[in-house]
Amino acid sequence: MLRQCGTTLLFETRGRGLVEITRHVAEWANGSEIQEGVLTLFVRHTSASLVVQENADAEVREDLDRFFARLVPDGDPLFRHRDEGSDDMPAHVRAALSGVHLSIPVAGGRLALGQWQGIYLWEHRLRPHQREVALHLVGD
Amino acid sequence: MLRQCGTTLLFETRGRGLVEITRHVAEWANGSEIQEGVLTLFVRHTSASLVVQENADAEVREDLDRFFARLVPDGDPLFRHRDEGSDDMPAHVRAALSGVHLSIPVAGGRLALGQWQGIYLWEHRLRPHQREVALHLVGD
Amino acid sequence: MLRQCGTTLLFETRGRGLVEITRHVAEWANGSEIQEGVLTLFVRHTSASLVVQENADAEVREDLDRFFARLVPDGDPLFRHRDEGSDDMPAHVRAALSGVHLSIPVAGGRLALGQWQGIYLWEHRLRPHQREVALHLVGD
Repeated sequence: MLRQCGTTLLFETRGRGLVEITRHVAEWANGSEIQEGVLTLFVRHTSASLVVQENADAEVREDLDRFFARLVPDGDPLFRHRDEGSDDMPAHVRAALSGVHLSIPVAGGRLALGQWQGIYLWEHRLRPHQREVALHLVGD
Repeated sequence: MLRQCGTTLLFETRGRGLVEITRHVAEWANGSEIQEGVLTLFVRHTSASLVVQENADAEVREDLDRFFARLVPDGDPLFRHRDEGSDDMPAHVRAALSGVHLSIPVAGGRLALGQWQGIYLWEHRLRPHQREVALHLVGD
Repeated sequence: MLRQCGTTLLFETRGRGLVEITRHVAEWANGSEIQEGVLTLFVRHTSASLVVQENADAEVREDLDRFFARLVPDGDPLFRHRDEGSDDMPAHVRAALSGVHLSIPVAGGRLALGQWQGIYLWEHRLRPHQREVALHLVGD
């Protein structure tokens, strides 16, 4: 018999960069005792995103953030929306490019992540923020 | 007891740019009377996309579109696929960068969007088009 | 009564580029005999991605890959993570930009893809790889 559960997890970021949240998400999913199903994650903000990335070498995440900083420069004169700071509109663009939601199957009681995959909350603002991630799991 | 429902919504775009569809999507989801669950949206085209973005200042969407127009220029000589116009291949690239689907949890009878989040259909072609968005909702 | 099924499909890539997997995915989904529901696809790697793109003109996929190669150049001196080759960190960035998962509604016993849409596994490494795609389908 299929069933579902949901929650909202809160994370503190330390300014721009990727924060690994795999363990927190997996602990909540494991607690549901759902063995087979699908997990949805959704970040409730417009200047943060959710990505699956390599969990081995921290330089990967630093390079990723460095690439995005070059691609979408803070204070770019192209942008007219500047009232909330020079890093605000770039944060919205970075969120559009990297995405605000993830869907990950659950199989054999585990998230179907590959060996080198972790789940990351990506803070795009320069300052620390508290971020809400809504989770939903359906399965049995 | 879990149940599901689905539909296809049609939207008219007025050429390149973001069209807010939050209200239409929420009305359909509310009509299902599903209180907890997860909503999937999927745009059935290769030159439009679906994004969650800031719903307050219209300049954010204009800046977003302006950034994408600079990143993926119309008529870029890099592109060989030109038969359908100088904005066609850029539209496919823009769709790959921003995504054609969204998954949003439903909690307490409402889409779990943050306060500043809206759902947008992003038209990437210069001319107006009619676009189909397939919706699916599972929950109870 | 809602039910679910899941599997993992293996695909061999021939190096960088897009591999159409629509037929394999649709065959598996059809075999479930689920008429209405939602399909989730998730690639279990950090240097490949999943996209929905035009299925008509092969030049579209070549242009898409050519655009990404220019946007995220192999061997870019910006990147410090270089131990696994000059195409490795670009592959992670390309995966962040294009996404590792897809959600596609099923309606009337068919994937709700538009007429010109196909499902593609995008290999971002230069060499051939075997890639695992986890699938999950819920519906009835």
